[in-house]
Amino acid sequence: MSQGELQGYKGLVLNALKKAGVKIGDLIRITRNGETYEGILIPRSELGDDEHVVIKLKSGYNIGVRVTPKTKIERIGAGVKPSFAAPSPPSEKPGLPKVTIVSTGGTIASRVDYRTGAVRPALTASDLYSVVPELSEVAVVEADILFSVFSENITPQHWSEMAKHVASYIKKGVDGVVIAHGTDTMGYSAAALSFALQNLPAPVIFVGSQRSADRPSSDAATNLIGAVRAAAYAPFAEVALAMHETISDTTILLHRGTKVRKCHTSRRDTFKSINASPLARVEGEKITMLTENYIKRDKNRKLILKPEFEEKVALIKFHPGLNPAIIDWYVDNGYYGIVLEGTGLGHVGRYCFKSLERAIKKDVLVAMTSQCIWGRINMNVYDQGRDLLALGVIPLEDMLPETALVKMMWVFGQTKDFQEAKRLLKTNIAHEFSDRTLYEELP
Amino acid sequence: MSQGELQGYKGLVLNALKKAGVKIGDLIRITRNGETYEGILIPRSELGDDEHVVIKLKSGYNIGVRVTPKTKIERIGAGVKPSFAAPSPPSEKPGLPKVTIVSTGGTIASRVDYRTGAVRPALTASDLYSVVPELSEVAVVEADILFSVFSENITPQHWSEMAKHVASYIKKGVDGVVIAHGTDTMGYSAAALSFALQNLPAPVIFVGSQRSADRPSSDAATNLIGAVRAAAYAPFAEVALAMHETISDTTILLHRGTKVRKCHTSRRDTFKSINASPLARVEGEKITMLTENYIKRDKNRKLILKPEFEEKVALIKFHPGLNPAIIDWYVDNGYYGIVLEGTGLGHVGRYCFKSLERAIKKDVLVAMTSQCIWGRINMNVYDQGRDLLALGVIPLEDMLPETALVKMMWVFGQTKDFQEAKRLLKTNIAHEFSDRTLYEELP
Repeated sequence: MSQGELQGYKGLVLNALKKAGVKIGDLIRITRNGETYEGILIPRSELGDDEHVVIKLKSGYNIGVRVTPKTKIERIGAGVKPSFAAPSPPSEKPGLPKVTIVSTGGTIASRVDYRTGAVRPALTASDLYSVVPELSEVAVVEADILFSVFSENITPQHWSEMAKHVASYIKKGVDGVVIAHGTDTMGYSAAALSFALQNLPAPVIFVGSQRSADRPSSDAATNLIGAVRAAAYAPFAEVALAMHETISDTTILLHRGTKVRKCHTSRRDTFKSINASPLARVEGEKITMLTENYIKRDKNRKLILKPEFEEKVALIKFHPGLNPAIIDWYVDNGYYGIVLEGTGLGHVGRYCFKSLERAIKKDVLVAMTSQCIWGRINMNVYDQGRDLLALGVIPLEDMLPETALVKMMWVFGQTKDFQEAKRLLKTNIAHEFSDRTLYEELP
Repeated sequence: MSQGELQGYKGLVLNALKKAGVKIGDLIRITRNGETYEGILIPRSELGDDEHVVIKLKSGYNIGVRVTPKTKIERIGAGVKPSFAAPSPPSEKPGLPKVTIVSTGGTIASRVDYRTGAVRPALTASDLYSVVPELSEVAVVEADILFSVFSENITPQHWSEMAKHVASYIKKGVDGVVIAHGTDTMGYSAAALSFALQNLPAPVIFVGSQRSADRPSSDAATNLIGAVRAAAYAPFAEVALAMHETISDTTILLHRGTKVRKCHTSRRDTFKSINASPLARVEGEKITMLTENYIKRDKNRKLILKPEFEEKVALIKFHPGLNPAIIDWYVDNGYYGIVLEGTGLGHVGRYCFKSLERAIKKDVLVAMTSQCIWGRINMNVYDQGRDLLALGVIPLEDMLPETALVKMMWVFGQTKDFQEAKRLLKTNIAHEFSDRTLYEELP
């Protein structure tokens, strides 16, 4: 039996699997302490553990079962790839709004490989449509694959491509665009398109899923239906992100692209609006606006496309013991700007001041956000904050650090002039700043 | 009138202030649109705004008032420094537990400078005791100033000093130690002491405040009373952090040092336990444990002090467009370890793999946490996560990125041996890992 057939297993577990004559991809039964587990044997690659067999249950979940000398392992059969019924797409209903789904990859556009148990980007946008026949009741959907990449591989260049691609559909007059995207960096992309697509006539809705579409626990279908409904009917014309409001399937929230963040590794309600109300809620066929301050859908508005991003912008998360030489490194390597993720109200250690001063003297734009995530920067409270302001550090109010990074990349995609960049950075373009209250107090 | 007397003001506002004959520190009245604001004029250092006068209201809050040509400004008098009545400390009650308050600085150990409106570290630990006479009913309190620094200036060297200092009191047999600390990096310090002080016989409680003690809205007194009560009476003997549970003054939560994070720039309930239950709640005189899994107070247990930290450990927050050359820079500058704040379940862009592989080949320890903050790393779900595991990246389960950084600094303070460091990093020392559930599913 070759290594590949029991990839990643070793020691006691490897011996037990060999003895049972099973290989990766087989349907197996494990009996231990009177309990029985059935599932497809999947490979391991984690170093160090030689005690667990990992199987994929019928439910789609992976489970690790500890093997002891008393554990019984049997082969039941070959791993059966669950049928992934793809009926021919339902016929279009004329008269419904037109929505384009642009697929970029990610879990929502992926399926589980039942040989390895891994999730691969494989599902086409048209598959998605087939899997969710309800969409035909909501809109006339056109499906289009732009990329097929996991979102951790998305770069600012992809943002440019996405923006141009979406703009081409908007210009063709669709009623809305949905972008299927991996959840890992979907918040960054949503922020990017919020700056790149200005003066939108129709909504642009990002959507992802935390569980792939062929798993029973998947949130893909409900998220997608909510996103398409928003693209087709929502009264706003902004860039938003549609995901579960809670861990149940009842409501989908629409978050503003500049105010949203992935806050949990696995939950369906992982995305949260930070320092702002979500934009709207989709519940069944009903879309409820959650703020009065939004840009209304208007077919006659002319989109302004500004798709350039500059990658030479850094995000530095401050922490005790941070080496300020890292600031110098960015300056010496031609970076245009640095977003600091400071502590609390917007602070960094005094031992960083010299490097920050040098950066600013060399016309590197330095801005401050908070690693607290929630709340607003206020650098006027403490002496040390005032000193940072005096050095020329720009306080970014309640803007998310991730949005600040994306915005600075966008700003330097528009101009390389320091003063103009500073002006743009401080200008509220897509609700990245929430209103300041007169009293700088608690919510 | 010198520049200093109206520091930071310019344009229209500067003229209006000059005309009114007021200077920084004066009590002034501003009348505008029929509304009146009274307070002490404080300096500005923020660049760019020449429209607002900033005054400190009697309540202690700062407020910006927009000045127009119609705005009236008058001097009412000299800024009166509010009296800060410090009664002589109440007499000690014999028989009460002994608690040492070690002051390191921060807002809880600071007072507002009424000339500049800024908060300065000035209040001594003994002042604190005077300000909160209720403490004498709770414990026999000994007060001690170790540092007087804002917490953004705290470094790993300060952690070592703190650990040794606290250990000296523990060895003298006190019933508990309270550490007054700035909130900005209090979470980092609490994690540091969780690793440095092992086998504790008594609790060590960090405490801070979001508003300084001489402001009416201060949370300093209630937090301090809660912390001293926990140090004196709590049944556990671990490092914890005491802060408001909600924005009201009724309950104080005790969070484990390794599982706590500052999550809001200004709210009193800014600290949250992440991926874990808080350790205990203080409500009036009652202390309720919120978990059954804790180390019990035991006078006879012998403290093990391991106060060394190594600063050459990096925290890299991954984002789209991250320059992998930064990984190389750390490796080439003799760093021992890198904590990645990856996306989602523990990913970084494939364009970083080569640099990570190089780092690991050169025996730099690389570990993965998630920038989601909540949830658990699972690098077995996607191909790309498995590839990172195969490279030798260590998944740190549900550990906070900040705690992972501190732990790795501590690990390399104990050993420079790669394998031993890896073993220590993966060993659960102070509840930095929460129990893994069999089903890797939602909470």
